[in-house]
Amino acid sequence: MGNELPRNTILRLSQYRRLLEKYRYLDQPYVFSHDLARILNLKSVNVRHDFMLLGITGDRRMGYNIHLLLEKINEKLGKDGVNIILIGLGRLGESVLSYLEDSSSYLKVSAIFEIDPSKIGTSHNEIDCFSITELTAFVKRGGITTAILAVPQEDVNDILPIMLDAGIKGILNYSPEQLNVPDEVIVRNVDIISSLEEINYSLSG
Amino acid sequence: MGNELPRNTILRLSQYRRLLEKYRYLDQPYVFSHDLARILNLKSVNVRHDFMLLGITGDRRMGYNIHLLLEKINEKLGKDGVNIILIGLGRLGESVLSYLEDSSSYLKVSAIFEIDPSKIGTSHNEIDCFSITELTAFVKRGGITTAILAVPQEDVNDILPIMLDAGIKGILNYSPEQLNVPDEVIVRNVDIISSLEEINYSLSG
Repeated sequence: MGNELPRNTILRLSQYRRLLEKYRYLDQPYVFSHDLARILNLKSVNVRHDFMLLGITGDRRMGYNIHLLLEKINEKLGKDGVNIILIGLGRLGESVLSYLEDSSSYLKVSAIFEIDPSKIGTSHNEIDCFSITELTAFVKRGGITTAILAVPQEDVNDILPIMLDAGIKGILNYSPEQLNVPDEVIVRNVDIISSLEEINYSLSG
Repeated sequence: MGNELPRNTILRLSQYRRLLEKYRYLDQPYVFSHDLARILNLKSVNVRHDFMLLGITGDRRMGYNIHLLLEKINEKLGKDGVNIILIGLGRLGESVLSYLEDSSSYLKVSAIFEIDPSKIGTSHNEIDCFSITELTAFVKRGGITTAILAVPQEDVNDILPIMLDAGIKGILNYSPEQLNVPDEVIVRNVDIISSLEEINYSLSG
């Protein structure tokens, strides 16, 4: 592993992997960049450039070898299951859990944390929901580094310091709050307003 | 409007706008690119480059004029309310509605569509939920072009053709399905697996 690849390439490698795993048992384990591009709504040139960054060249007549692509993507993204935690089990947290169940991935939600006593102690598809007061011990014991933050906006400022103190270094932030974190912590925002405004901009062109 | 700006710039302009609108009534309506970068977890160089693309130069001592920034961003993104529709009122659809309520934006959900009879006819913060059979007429009458797709994976293939026939040209896709759409339709996927795998990649570097 290493972090030399551009962020957009990594986001696409994750998409390729999920798609290619469905194709790996085909008799002809080859795929063309333009077919991948079409299925994933990407540009062929980006797909070919990503594969070049992986050091893989396609065969003019056959396309790219799927097993080789998967091997190289696994080297970059890792293929041992990655344990993450979910913080917040409201409607959003529940929908995140369903989403992760529906899609085969190497990510595993190993615990849920809540402040609502009526949710603490429940479990969802064998994932237990604990009190936020147990977060620090759980994270330290499990060497967890990544969390999905799906709590209401008004709770963010109470919960963020607990996460940071526990050693969380990567946060997928579902709240509209901008998280104030130290430089070494990585935050990615699921920002649906930006996405919708970008769609409208592209449609207006 | 026009679509000459890079996609990532547009995504950031949307973020700047929401932040700057909170600052517009300050006595000193100036802001530094490094402050914006810090608050939004971006790189200063990207912020400055975005503002250069808007044709705005900062003052070395004062920074950037907030009113001018907002004026130029509004020119690009538009500032008349944009009507969109939400398809699917499950846990995910409900959480999308709450998110859009919490965050001030120029986007307005003008209707919700469902196949579940128990949800049709209800309303959520004055937004009515209609049967999917009414979608075509509503979209055509309202000149709606953008939809948020938040239905379960197994319903996507039934509902997508209805959306396309009705004239939807931009889709924010919350399902793990890859949508098969004509070239002129824009799909943006809310792909949390890619985001989480990218976070883990960056942490492993």
